[in-house]
Amino acid sequence: MDLKQSVQDAQERINRYVSETPLELSPYLSKIGKCRVWLKCENVQTTGSFKLRGAANKLLSLKTSEVSQGLVTASSGNHGNAFAYLVNMLGFPARIVLPENASPAKVEALRYWGTGIELYGNDCVEAECFARESAAKRGEVFISPYNDPDIIAGQGTVGIEIMAQMDRLSPDRKTDVVLVPVGGGGLISGIAGYLKAIDEHIEMIGCQPENSAVMYESMKAGRIISLESKPTLSDGTAGGIEPGSITFELCQRLVDDMVLVSEKEIVEALHLILERHHLLVEGAGALTVAAFLKNIARFEKKNVVLVISGRKIGISQLKEILC
Amino acid sequence: MDLKQSVQDAQERINRYVSETPLELSPYLSKIGKCRVWLKCENVQTTGSFKLRGAANKLLSLKTSEVSQGLVTASSGNHGNAFAYLVNMLGFPARIVLPENASPAKVEALRYWGTGIELYGNDCVEAECFARESAAKRGEVFISPYNDPDIIAGQGTVGIEIMAQMDRLSPDRKTDVVLVPVGGGGLISGIAGYLKAIDEHIEMIGCQPENSAVMYESMKAGRIISLESKPTLSDGTAGGIEPGSITFELCQRLVDDMVLVSEKEIVEALHLILERHHLLVEGAGALTVAAFLKNIARFEKKNVVLVISGRKIGISQLKEILC
Repeated sequence: MDLKQSVQDAQERINRYVSETPLELSPYLSKIGKCRVWLKCENVQTTGSFKLRGAANKLLSLKTSEVSQGLVTASSGNHGNAFAYLVNMLGFPARIVLPENASPAKVEALRYWGTGIELYGNDCVEAECFARESAAKRGEVFISPYNDPDIIAGQGTVGIEIMAQMDRLSPDRKTDVVLVPVGGGGLISGIAGYLKAIDEHIEMIGCQPENSAVMYESMKAGRIISLESKPTLSDGTAGGIEPGSITFELCQRLVDDMVLVSEKEIVEALHLILERHHLLVEGAGALTVAAFLKNIARFEKKNVVLVISGRKIGISQLKEILC
Repeated sequence: MDLKQSVQDAQERINRYVSETPLELSPYLSKIGKCRVWLKCENVQTTGSFKLRGAANKLLSLKTSEVSQGLVTASSGNHGNAFAYLVNMLGFPARIVLPENASPAKVEALRYWGTGIELYGNDCVEAECFARESAAKRGEVFISPYNDPDIIAGQGTVGIEIMAQMDRLSPDRKTDVVLVPVGGGGLISGIAGYLKAIDEHIEMIGCQPENSAVMYESMKAGRIISLESKPTLSDGTAGGIEPGSITFELCQRLVDDMVLVSEKEIVEALHLILERHHLLVEGAGALTVAAFLKNIARFEKKNVVLVISGRKIGISQLKEILC
């Protein structure tokens, strides 16, 4: 597929529902890194993360015949939140499958949007399997959080904004490097697909937590591997990659390097973003700042973009980090 | 002056530097208020607050002969931050006067932008007086944080965005009420000037802390009064109003009601915004949520916009609120 064109088409399709998020210069990181550092703040996207972009592009690309069958997804995180918000706005029939132990607060938040909630199984994997199978049986459309060309193209619109904002705010310096959090790989595939088509010299670096480094290890192995994940603050990127996911081949082709960070480094980055930028971010949202700090010498004199992915952090987690 | 036209002109002038901030539906507040509540998130504006809009409009409206004389302001808060960012971007010669006891962290943050920093006097009032007087002597242009038609018109661009976003996101319901934090009154004057010109039925409510209610008391008295302020979490709106400020007459004419909130109510609102929206806001930024909660029955069935003004809250203050 022509990813650049798909991303441009997505932009046209979704701009009614999606905010252009700020590209914000970080004086502090620029100073300590002897470079220029910009935060691309998808944490302030409507519904709390970039996931709105992909979900909007997917839902607005469906045929009416598909919509009328009903839509299903399985996520209580940022993807689920974006999905619930959009099906409410669009008036689409939909349900979300969650594990039986899903937190009541998350279930309540999703219920507000009027989406049907179905509880099934003991964890997210069981809930997702059930969602897929029951959707297939009933003829509903299952909406994947990342393994879908329309989702990837939607996430890629972050790349369009980075290009346009950099031209506007930094006419003297082009983008050299972009760091992106990686879970399933949808976000980095979309951004890299667009940016590399515009300028192949832009370096794309994926960031993962050491405790759940499935894409990192898969790229090293040259095939999607399954790997147990340890608990991580970056729960937004944690977990395995679906067998045969189209994001894997895209990451192999478009991502120049992958960087891992520890839990301690994620906490330090979260703290820094709170203190220096007064922005609340979730663990996954802090990955790129952590990766930048860990490899700071490498970025000297460069014009660097750190993509901040989302803000869904619980109050109790925030307290732990602060106190 | 034709405030509506000035606001529209400002929009054209500043859109290169300013983000369109999200207008975000609040499921939780909508549910408990039996109404529809939207947050206008100026806390995620570049440089941390709506102050960027007014400062950008002022700076871009200056004649080159004025710019070449040098620009001066006196603020280590959101206005100062926006000013320092913009003069750096625009390459304008400028200095900021701060009191001698200004926090080293704030001074350092401003210095990054290359603006000259001058320390003078024991508090903000002394620093501001000195800034004005020395500017007059040297022929420099003093940039007020609110008492200036160009600043007011810039802040009013928040109103343009509210109208456009409401049309897009809520085609079935027009805006009924807008709540806005009030300090000097620049923000509410600009927004109300624009919105009332479009639809005079939109109700405008100003919000202040009980501990520093100068505009509230002045409007009651029918003249600008000076009044001692007690310490408040809403330091962004605290302090007196300049004698003869043009915002006073605008507020008298355009603001339908003023609401006061206690410190405890501000803390509760801050907590709620963190927990339900995962957004970090400063005390002033939480005023409208606090005012909404305090008067909740009044908003039943209405379509309500709460303007969130900024996010500059210190880590230690945040800890106190959370722990």
